Amino acid sequence: MSKTSKPNWKNKLHEIIYEADTPEGKLFDVVLLIFILASIALVMLESVSTIDKKYHNILYIGEWIVTILFSIEYIARIITVNKPKKYILSFYGIIDLLSTVPMYLSFFFVGGHALVALRALRLLRVFRILKLARYLGASNKLAGAIKASRAKISVFLFAVIIAAIIFGTLMYLVEGEENGFNNIPKSVYWCIVTLTTVGFGDIAPQTPLGQLIATIIMIMGYGIIAVPTGIVSAEYTRSANKKDEENKTEPDKINLNSQNCQNCLTANHIDGAEYCYNCGHNLHIE
Amino acid sequence: MSKTSKPNWKNKLHEIIYEADTPEGKLFDVVLLIFILASIALVMLESVSTIDKKYHNILYIGEWIVTILFSIEYIARIITVNKPKKYILSFYGIIDLLSTVPMYLSFFFVGGHALVALRALRLLRVFRILKLARYLGASNKLAGAIKASRAKISVFLFAVIIAAIIFGTLMYLVEGEENGFNNIPKSVYWCIVTLTTVGFGDIAPQTPLGQLIATIIMIMGYGIIAVPTGIVSAEYTRSANKKDEENKTEPDKINLNSQNCQNCLTANHIDGAEYCYNCGHNLHIE
Amino acid sequence: MSKTSKPNWKNKLHEIIYEADTPEGKLFDVVLLIFILASIALVMLESVSTIDKKYHNILYIGEWIVTILFSIEYIARIITVNKPKKYILSFYGIIDLLSTVPMYLSFFFVGGHALVALRALRLLRVFRILKLARYLGASNKLAGAIKASRAKISVFLFAVIIAAIIFGTLMYLVEGEENGFNNIPKSVYWCIVTLTTVGFGDIAPQTPLGQLIATIIMIMGYGIIAVPTGIVSAEYTRSANKKDEENKTEPDKINLNSQNCQNCLTANHIDGAEYCYNCGHNLHIE
Amino acid sequence: MSKTSKPNWKNKLHEIIYEADTPEGKLFDVVLLIFILASIALVMLESVSTIDKKYHNILYIGEWIVTILFSIEYIARIITVNKPKKYILSFYGIIDLLSTVPMYLSFFFVGGHALVALRALRLLRVFRILKLARYLGASNKLAGAIKASRAKISVFLFAVIIAAIIFGTLMYLVEGEENGFNNIPKSVYWCIVTLTTVGFGDIAPQTPLGQLIATIIMIMGYGIIAVPTGIVSAEYTRSANKKDEENKTEPDKINLNSQNCQNCLTANHIDGAEYCYNCGHNLHIE
Repeated sequence: MSKTSKPNWKNKLHEIIYEADTPEGKLFDVVLLIFILASIALVMLESVSTIDKKYHNILYIGEWIVTILFSIEYIARIITVNKPKKYILSFYGIIDLLSTVPMYLSFFFVGGHALVALRALRLLRVFRILKLARYLGASNKLAGAIKASRAKISVFLFAVIIAAIIFGTLMYLVEGEENGFNNIPKSVYWCIVTLTTVGFGDIAPQTPLGQLIATIIMIMGYGIIAVPTGIVSAEYTRSANKKDEENKTEPDKINLNSQNCQNCLTANHIDGAEYCYNCGHNLHIE
Repeated sequence: MSKTSKPNWKNKLHEIIYEADTPEGKLFDVVLLIFILASIALVMLESVSTIDKKYHNILYIGEWIVTILFSIEYIARIITVNKPKKYILSFYGIIDLLSTVPMYLSFFFVGGHALVALRALRLLRVFRILKLARYLGASNKLAGAIKASRAKISVFLFAVIIAAIIFGTLMYLVEGEENGFNNIPKSVYWCIVTLTTVGFGDIAPQTPLGQLIATIIMIMGYGIIAVPTGIVSAEYTRSANKKDEENKTEPDKINLNSQNCQNCLTANHIDGAEYCYNCGHNLHIE
Repeated sequence: MSKTSKPNWKNKLHEIIYEADTPEGKLFDVVLLIFILASIALVMLESVSTIDKKYHNILYIGEWIVTILFSIEYIARIITVNKPKKYILSFYGIIDLLSTVPMYLSFFFVGGHALVALRALRLLRVFRILKLARYLGASNKLAGAIKASRAKISVFLFAVIIAAIIFGTLMYLVEGEENGFNNIPKSVYWCIVTLTTVGFGDIAPQTPLGQLIATIIMIMGYGIIAVPTGIVSAEYTRSANKKDEENKTEPDKINLNSQNCQNCLTANHIDGAEYCYNCGHNLHIE
Repeated sequence: MSKTSKPNWKNKLHEIIYEADTPEGKLFDVVLLIFILASIALVMLESVSTIDKKYHNILYIGEWIVTILFSIEYIARIITVNKPKKYILSFYGIIDLLSTVPMYLSFFFVGGHALVALRALRLLRVFRILKLARYLGASNKLAGAIKASRAKISVFLFAVIIAAIIFGTLMYLVEGEENGFNNIPKSVYWCIVTLTTVGFGDIAPQTPLGQLIATIIMIMGYGIIAVPTGIVSAEYTRSANKKDEENKTEPDKINLNSQNCQNCLTANHIDGAEYCYNCGHNLHIE
């Protein structure tokens, strides 16, 4: 571990960018949040042709301001981290890159600019900034419930997909191309639209037999929508009950802070932590 | 506190308007309820052009009767309350004003009359008049369950919105303007229509890739619809269990009456209360 | 009470029609069930114009056979019961009459025949014949859960309707007649279609502001769909838990038979009951 | 029982085809899984006319390879089983036959080829191959919950169908053929589309009265969607609680293997089982 291998300003910058405990760190997070929201608003407004025609220049300048700031942030993140490669290849690292590159690409490729919309993925950082996870509350009971029932729900959804393929094929045979069921993939798509009770209506069975099968699919969907809901609520009740039994005097809200270790990038440090629980690196070098 | 600063008839009127304990107060509430329902029926009928053509004059006269009565009620409420400003600026005060003003405005502005429909907001008063909250039952267990899970559901809905923005942007890139996904806001709107399993079908994916992504969105929506339901039912089961354990001999129905303090406008006084629990003002001055 | 006021054959007939304990009674129920299903199949087939054209005569004769048999049954039910007036004015009495009258009316009125479809209401008798209630299981726990949460769900649905009226009015103001929101009732109808996540798509918001409000309505609907589900499952879990605690050795299936008292028409007698629990009339007079 | 009546290679082959314990058996399962998925992909691609035009020959050859391999597998399954008749008439036996026959039929009948799509049913074997049931977890609690609530949900769905018939008939009378409600079966179909909150929108009420009834149907559907969900989640919570009380030290995952007895075709043998629990036949004859 190279605790002192970097000049002081790098440590300072790391503190600001990766941590939210210091006033500067909090300010950085708020500013970043505003710029992410602004950048998404820009992309949205630009996609509306009437607005784009009127304010094209303003939006274009806005785009470049956001892109340059995000680029600076991206470079700063790489410089201040001990293991830049790890950051670059991390989930957020790739998203951060994708939110700046398309703008530069638009010089060389005509269509490149459209990919600016990928910036929407940066919204995911909002979760980390706002520490939303903590509102999910009480020792992550909800997360536990979802985790506990994940395997079951997966198998369940898998069963839904198999049912959709079988019934979709059946509907293709029954309805045929003349009624909008052009091919089996489209039929399967329709079947999922129906099973999930979305029901766009762009394709709908026309023959009496097709409508009968559709009825069976819908009632099936009605019956099985109960299963994942039942699983989650039961798991949640269960973990809630366990908590009640252990009769803790509400030490439930563990304040996970938004710090990231400068050395190994691990997150989820407990509030007030001085050293990384993963690699032992000092979290507050100044 | 100015307990005796007002003449007797004002106190009497306050008793009738703001309280439901006396026979006159109950009668006032019933009459008010009928007039609110009648006023909404009038607005509805008027909006149906065939009915409006036939019975325009009758409906117009009805409108004015309702408007004048509501105006009188509004003025009476202001006069009889100790702190008129507080009432005027309160939620119900603003609604009460909005339900009378548009009719008068229609003298000066042509479009003003349409806003009469805002009167529909007065329906919210029905909750207070019918004391519906008490049917929600047993010590407001339901309210407790919703409150307890409010934060979690909020975060959850927040996650749904972020997912909608990301997938909406993706669909805009994949489907494009030629398939009805004109711009990103519209795409996000479509995405929420799909995630919530509403599925209007005014916009529907046409390309195979778009339909594949739509399938993922729908199955995701199918899986996550389980979460808020699970949370509410678990919280509700929990609070119900707690109640059972405390083994109360059913003193659950606390009869909250519909009185409002004349001085500070606080509601939710317990039945038979003589003084406001908030400011100590006498609730029954005669 | 006139236990012996009727001739023997009347008692015998009453036993067959109103009770299911004897072999003849069971046979009668099965035959009745078949005729009800056949009569509904007839009405359905007749409504399909292509089938009606081909087999009009057969269907017409079938109609008359069913009508005459139902008429005989109706008269027999009146004759064998001690208090005919009570039967005639009872729920099932009115349905039985409605399922025969339209056919006779078709002699005098041209449109009268269409009302034959009202016969579908006779399907409700299937519940009594098949004793379906008993499958709902274990001491009517489910019925208890629904009953216990009925008031709460009612208030909840009431809130949904008020929300629909307010948001429907708002959508009428925002979208207007040019986008299909012709009048407020239709707007409210659209709002309920959206809140319940049905989403026909025959009317859909076109303006950006309308789509924004629609988004709010849908997310609201998504959030509140959790509430009635949560209530029912919690109530059901609760009553199930109570049952478990009382630790009954499964005497849950009380065989309610399908007998009706000849005197007062009360149903739900326990298997093997000899006298009506309501009026003391002998249930098995032969 | 004829434990040694077959030559050694038959036993060997049976071991490979019907069991997954040996390396050869596992390999066979994986290869079979790949071929099933490939065969379904072929059918899907073939149904897309643009792809079929381009690659018709490749797809056609692929079809025949899959068909011949499935035929060989089918014959091998018949030969190696002690009671071929039982396999041939079993659920999977019929599916296996149906997935090969249509291809041969296409020599004699023109339309026969379309039935190749029936091969999609082979997907059901995926469940057995992947042993998905075990993920449903902890002593099949979920299966127990669904089983326990099956009768109740059936009655419930039965009630939904009766409601659909009654309301569908009503809508036919109210809306009539001019608004798309051509006949009662179609009306009933529309009613189920609405009750299950699917809402295609291909048929939608046009008259005010029809829209009012539709509103009632939708709110009813909204209210009753709570019931099956409530039942499943309550049953699941219950069985989960029971498990917790019995306080087992997690011996929950019983590794059911995918062996089938060579003699009686029974499945679900426990891992490491040497003899069939049903007929005593040796499971591992080599």
